Amino acid sequence: MTLSRSPLAPKTLPRAKPVAGIQFYTGSSGTKYKGRDDVFLATFPSGTTAAASFTQNQVVGAPVTWTRNLAHKAAPRALIVNAGNANVAVGSAGQATVEDIGLGIASLIGVEPSDVWQASTGVIGEPLDPDPIIGSISQLPESDIEAAAAACLTTDTFPKMAAREFQIDGETVSISGFAKGSGMIHPNMATMLAFVFTDAKINAVELQEMHQRAVAETFNAITVDGDTSTSDMALTFASGRGAKLHNNSVFFSELREVYRDLAQLIVRDGEGATKFITIDVAGASSIEAARTLAFSIANSPLVKTAIAGEDANWGRVMMALGRSGIEFDDTTVSVSIGGLPIVEAGARIVDYNEEPIAEHLRGQDIELSIKMGAGDGKFTVWTCDLTHGYISINADYRS
Amino acid sequence: MTLSRSPLAPKTLPRAKPVAGIQFYTGSSGTKYKGRDDVFLATFPSGTTAAASFTQNQVVGAPVTWTRNLAHKAAPRALIVNAGNANVAVGSAGQATVEDIGLGIASLIGVEPSDVWQASTGVIGEPLDPDPIIGSISQLPESDIEAAAAACLTTDTFPKMAAREFQIDGETVSISGFAKGSGMIHPNMATMLAFVFTDAKINAVELQEMHQRAVAETFNAITVDGDTSTSDMALTFASGRGAKLHNNSVFFSELREVYRDLAQLIVRDGEGATKFITIDVAGASSIEAARTLAFSIANSPLVKTAIAGEDANWGRVMMALGRSGIEFDDTTVSVSIGGLPIVEAGARIVDYNEEPIAEHLRGQDIELSIKMGAGDGKFTVWTCDLTHGYISINADYRS
Repeated sequence: MTLSRSPLAPKTLPRAKPVAGIQFYTGSSGTKYKGRDDVFLATFPSGTTAAASFTQNQVVGAPVTWTRNLAHKAAPRALIVNAGNANVAVGSAGQATVEDIGLGIASLIGVEPSDVWQASTGVIGEPLDPDPIIGSISQLPESDIEAAAAACLTTDTFPKMAAREFQIDGETVSISGFAKGSGMIHPNMATMLAFVFTDAKINAVELQEMHQRAVAETFNAITVDGDTSTSDMALTFASGRGAKLHNNSVFFSELREVYRDLAQLIVRDGEGATKFITIDVAGASSIEAARTLAFSIANSPLVKTAIAGEDANWGRVMMALGRSGIEFDDTTVSVSIGGLPIVEAGARIVDYNEEPIAEHLRGQDIELSIKMGAGDGKFTVWTCDLTHGYISINADYRS
Repeated sequence: MTLSRSPLAPKTLPRAKPVAGIQFYTGSSGTKYKGRDDVFLATFPSGTTAAASFTQNQVVGAPVTWTRNLAHKAAPRALIVNAGNANVAVGSAGQATVEDIGLGIASLIGVEPSDVWQASTGVIGEPLDPDPIIGSISQLPESDIEAAAAACLTTDTFPKMAAREFQIDGETVSISGFAKGSGMIHPNMATMLAFVFTDAKINAVELQEMHQRAVAETFNAITVDGDTSTSDMALTFASGRGAKLHNNSVFFSELREVYRDLAQLIVRDGEGATKFITIDVAGASSIEAARTLAFSIANSPLVKTAIAGEDANWGRVMMALGRSGIEFDDTTVSVSIGGLPIVEAGARIVDYNEEPIAEHLRGQDIELSIKMGAGDGKFTVWTCDLTHGYISINADYRS
């Protein structure tokens, strides 16, 4: 099926600049998608450091196992990614495929197989032939990051790109990245691949620490349907050809911005999404409680369908808070929609004016704000509504 | 909106017989539904024992708080139930309403307010006027259990009734009950009300123990959408006018059958349901692990939409197992659909025949069987598919 571009897609995407030391190559393997590139290779200079996060699903694809095993040394020389076949649940063939791809790419560019990180996305349970993957990029001239971003898409309706350029101690640092979604999105890496590249020179331990902190507030703060994929990764590569950094707060906050942009773009391309929803929970007994409460709302089919129906159904928000497993006193809870108070002390405000709230709900960007009145734990989650489009996509498409 | 009868509704429902000592009265309060009864009163003879379970949602209606406080003494004389307004999240007005209803019904039938158990279902956040509730049944002749079953329905498309009559030590024992659903169904009492009546004479401690065991395998083994309501209860009343029992295994298994029938009927009336799905997980490391795995499948939107689309998408089943949080070795997992093996040792059977599985998926009763190969924990969950009908009902109807 052909999906039309998400109504929540941004009008324009940032143009990513080249990242010093990193080359991209793209090709067409013919695995599943015809007439478009579905493989990309990124190559990294010696001295590149990296940070990684992986799906928390117990069932993982062979590429996840492969790259997870390499991630501890954090010294990659290449990243090879294919779209259309996730190489998951195919028995021992999965491992044979990643070994072949590692060997093929390593000989192509003159590195060791253990220098070649891998990711795959697409259908589960079909054996993946390594040869067309390797063959697709073996003869090609250098491409660019935008072509790579396009090559890893599956049911995505638009490419997801984020970029920042900023100064640290008088030196320009750049961070560029891209991601793919778009269903089966949930925290703990969900169904997504995100790849971020920077020219900064930073040691792997510091990069991994910043990566994990930033992932917790960005990629792990989104959900589309609560399902978690078997293939997901967020990988960040630092070529070391630019400014040398030590635990730099400017770098961290720019990195987090790139992750947040990509995370939000994934939600904006959620399957069938017509509303982008920001759920702010504050005043919880802890950050963890706030996170659990926010996700309980974000994953409630009844809340998501109410927003699809542009209905200010705050009762479902109260239900979703209550089903979270977090203990709280509902008589201190307040709820606002679009900044407009609707619930105070756990009950509807008697004389609240529904019309401006209804007006807000007719828009595309919906804000739910919940104050628990219990402490100072807060967390923000981004999600989308649940619509007929989601049903159509997932009842008809074997992903 | 008017909902048409679920395609999964049974052709016929059992006729419930009167239960010795218990009277039913029904009436129309005009609260929300016009032209039908929306209130019922059951009265119990002195000596009646009872057992109760309540929603685990932190946000509960005043009727839940009221009845939960009375349940410990397990000596009810009346049960009053209304449909259309759940009396939830209305601040202190909620408690005032249940006190007024308790007082009104108590004076009507000559008992104490603390003898009057209460339940409500319907919209959240609207104050409930007690007077029409009391008034609706104050002038009426005796009705029957089937009228009571009809009076407590909300978005249900058919009444849910179960009944058994059997012999214990030469004496006839009867159990009759009914329930309402039908969205927001999840374990821990979810959105449902279930009321069961028997003429057995059994002490409250034994009845509560059997009730809890049976609820765990029936009402707490169903899910429609993973949402949990603020109002739910399963209450069982034993009038003591029939056979005297002590921890009787025949009685327990008949009681559990009644609960199972009602639980399955609730799923068969799940919002938008077109397929009734049985998920058997066996070979897990424990019963609790089996339960978590089964619910992870049952609540996966991607599994539920695949079944709606009649797609043998076993990859989504593997994904759902993996996202459950339970640790397991996926190379020992096997999956059957409709009794037909499709996955062995964690991978698709190479030469499996898709056609008989596709044929099974075109039916209304779908069976997924998963063997984990890890131990002897097993659990069965019943659920339904996720369809356009669910979206239509919940995006358009304020429940």
